[in-house]
Amino acid sequence: MFEAAELGRTFSVQDYREEVPLLREQLLQLQDELRDANFSVIILFHGVDGAGKGETVNLLNAWMDPRGIVTRAFGNPSDEEQERPEFWRFWRELPPKGRIALFLSSWYSRPILDRVYNLAETATFDRRLNRILAFERMLVEDGTLLIKCWMHLGKKAQKGRLKSLEKDPLTRWRITQTDWKHFNLYDRFIDASEHALHKTATGETPWTIIEGYDSNYREITVGRTVRDAIRRHLEQSKQRDWQAQSTPTQGFISIRAGNNASRTVLSHLDMSLTTDNREDYKEHLEQLQGKLNLLFRRAKQQRYSLVVVFEGWDAAGKGGTIRRVTAALDARDYQVISIAAPTDEERAHHYLWRFWRYLPRTGRVTIFDRSWYGRVLVERIEGFTPESTWMRAYSEITDFEEQLYEHNILVVKFWLHITQEEQLRRFEERKTTPYKHYKLTEEDWRNREKWDLYDFSVNDMVERTSTRFARWTLIEANDKRYARIRVLKTLCDRLETVVTA
Amino acid sequence: MFEAAELGRTFSVQDYREEVPLLREQLLQLQDELRDANFSVIILFHGVDGAGKGETVNLLNAWMDPRGIVTRAFGNPSDEEQERPEFWRFWRELPPKGRIALFLSSWYSRPILDRVYNLAETATFDRRLNRILAFERMLVEDGTLLIKCWMHLGKKAQKGRLKSLEKDPLTRWRITQTDWKHFNLYDRFIDASEHALHKTATGETPWTIIEGYDSNYREITVGRTVRDAIRRHLEQSKQRDWQAQSTPTQGFISIRAGNNASRTVLSHLDMSLTTDNREDYKEHLEQLQGKLNLLFRRAKQQRYSLVVVFEGWDAAGKGGTIRRVTAALDARDYQVISIAAPTDEERAHHYLWRFWRYLPRTGRVTIFDRSWYGRVLVERIEGFTPESTWMRAYSEITDFEEQLYEHNILVVKFWLHITQEEQLRRFEERKTTPYKHYKLTEEDWRNREKWDLYDFSVNDMVERTSTRFARWTLIEANDKRYARIRVLKTLCDRLETVVTA
Repeated sequence: MFEAAELGRTFSVQDYREEVPLLREQLLQLQDELRDANFSVIILFHGVDGAGKGETVNLLNAWMDPRGIVTRAFGNPSDEEQERPEFWRFWRELPPKGRIALFLSSWYSRPILDRVYNLAETATFDRRLNRILAFERMLVEDGTLLIKCWMHLGKKAQKGRLKSLEKDPLTRWRITQTDWKHFNLYDRFIDASEHALHKTATGETPWTIIEGYDSNYREITVGRTVRDAIRRHLEQSKQRDWQAQSTPTQGFISIRAGNNASRTVLSHLDMSLTTDNREDYKEHLEQLQGKLNLLFRRAKQQRYSLVVVFEGWDAAGKGGTIRRVTAALDARDYQVISIAAPTDEERAHHYLWRFWRYLPRTGRVTIFDRSWYGRVLVERIEGFTPESTWMRAYSEITDFEEQLYEHNILVVKFWLHITQEEQLRRFEERKTTPYKHYKLTEEDWRNREKWDLYDFSVNDMVERTSTRFARWTLIEANDKRYARIRVLKTLCDRLETVVTA
Repeated sequence: MFEAAELGRTFSVQDYREEVPLLREQLLQLQDELRDANFSVIILFHGVDGAGKGETVNLLNAWMDPRGIVTRAFGNPSDEEQERPEFWRFWRELPPKGRIALFLSSWYSRPILDRVYNLAETATFDRRLNRILAFERMLVEDGTLLIKCWMHLGKKAQKGRLKSLEKDPLTRWRITQTDWKHFNLYDRFIDASEHALHKTATGETPWTIIEGYDSNYREITVGRTVRDAIRRHLEQSKQRDWQAQSTPTQGFISIRAGNNASRTVLSHLDMSLTTDNREDYKEHLEQLQGKLNLLFRRAKQQRYSLVVVFEGWDAAGKGGTIRRVTAALDARDYQVISIAAPTDEERAHHYLWRFWRYLPRTGRVTIFDRSWYGRVLVERIEGFTPESTWMRAYSEITDFEEQLYEHNILVVKFWLHITQEEQLRRFEERKTTPYKHYKLTEEDWRNREKWDLYDFSVNDMVERTSTRFARWTLIEANDKRYARIRVLKTLCDRLETVVTA
């Protein structure tokens, strides 16, 4: 795979001097067009030490307008990063639309090095590469242009380069013990890297292997690669936007053509379920809150954390239920995130970005009052998002939740279900009770008219995203007290499955 | 000070039941008005353990619409937080306009506890309280409503409360060893707290002391306090907005009436300074880059970090100079932040928030291409910001920079100065060189017309913000090469003053 990058390619000084001004002009022009484009650019630099990764990053900052460029180098994760799933640190640094990010040692570094140092089995290595594939596909499908550069040097060339850097007092600092340690593992490193590149070079996210031997050659090649990729992506993106405009979003029904079933997961619920008398409820509630508290503190000690998602009909009682849950927790341990319209920073990123932001640290709880499922509910139903986009959200979501699960973040998801009659009763009550009035909006009435569409969408959602690691629990919530008890009980049950006594 | 909160005040169940629905309605109504208001609300809860701080936070979340409320409890700082000045963690959690934040154990906790445990001298304690005063004043001047609640319990009452919580299996978990440890230090704790409250209760940020003995009394008192404060602030804020509208921003000149001096710090610079021949420059540059690299790596080892600010005329050569600096650094260690229009999240916070965001971790460098000085330059000159606002920015800025200094973040600030003639020459060159074209905007020409106003403003800026801990360096930059050498040399000199060999 790397043979073609060990040919000692060079680029003459004269040609270099001729090409650079033109290349810079083109890059700047493209960067200017990019500013208003609907996508971001991420350029990864990986490769052999001494092949000029850092220099290339400095170079691109010099050639282009640094105001549109973000440079990040991912070293050892901080404790805040370690307390989240591995990809959290990458999510937090993803560039907004219209910007370019240059990433040194990104998501490939740890998997490759762990393999080189024998800290990970081949199977683990492959699993991590699959995760990378899914992550990159998700970015690309969101419109991101991902350019992956592998800066290469043959073994001899690397040795020569390290030595010459070491000899020069001005560059000596660049060479550390680690570099020589890596050099001694050159062959292992190349093996693991080749495997990684091989597995992750897809049609949409190919690797560009760049020989790092001659700096003129390297710089021109990187410059051209970046130029051509951005140019092509800008053109394609205009086409894509044009296509999206000329194919109006289909609205809901099309994707459920021929559907003859009014039977959904919701229609199967027994909506007559209630608690017994009021006194029992109070006692039962307090008992469960005490139990939840105990279990969560134990989970905390065992370094678990908790993500709780509440979805449900308007007026299904999410707020009241959340308060019964938080009452059982220490105010220092939880945050409730209510999902409304995104901020402009959020809008300039992948739609999952705003949820990654709020993932709990180890031993903490984040409760989402509405969540990423808006993508496959309101956005689908209102036609805010094209079908292909919300269709792929199901797997993006399950990937996301799997990452939480693997990081010992327990994901518990509730759909609070009420009947149409009960909803009407509650709307009327909200109209007349002054301190509940604020809860009722025009939108609630509009949503109500789309009951059946929601019903189907919820069915699809449960079908496609109820997984072993993040099961949905549907709650019969016509009786609020019953619903609260069920939610608390479910939380206790789920905690009990992971917490050891 | 606390005697009045040890009277065993109670509130009858009947009165409580009558008042609560009304209070909730009023709170919700106010919260609704707040949504569109131009300020945020921060409510601090401090006080004696067992006096009901956590319960009160849960209660407010229950009474109000939790979608507009952010709850934060500040425990031990994470490593990312420890690597920044003490207030960084509070800055990152400040609520945007229109929102309410409930803070448990905020900026008062550490200073008080350090005093109680004798980890800090009285003088240190006072210094920290002064910092708090300045911080709170800054928030309040920005429009923030700050409500500070002290939840109190007498010694006996605390003991009783801890015991009764401990007896009940449902609440036993709330009482930890730390609580009893604190209890044994009750008198010391009260002494330190009284001192803190005494020093930090100002007309605009008073403390409200609330007896925590009876939960009905406590809840009603907190509810009323929050209600009255928000109501008053909303009224005042309308008045303020109205005044601001009826007093149009004065433009620049008013504040410099009677000024007869065209002599400014800039007019004193010797603009004929140049480097010698080109060969010398190249060698000198590389030598200084090598030196800077060495010094910075040593500084990194000694746990310093670096903030470099570049201000200067349009086309003064900031970009090119920054590249000469970054070329001396490892791409993994620095980030360049170019300051353009703020995002909406940034706009919804104090203007310094967006700079706190990007403070470097220990051993890192942040280079600001334009900075917080925009407040006293472009915002002043264009009349974007009222006089009183940019006038107080000088002390906000020096406070900010002092905090960096105290945290071993070296602050180095450059003004790159060129003459009007040289600027014109460079504008013309940009017009004709294709790959420099993007750098020249209409705004540059407009700014150029306001040369004298900038000249004066720079003079004021240097006069008021060049401090022992963050000195300004004015660079004669008509000769780009000369300027770059001077900047690199200054950085080396400043690093040498702190780094030990």
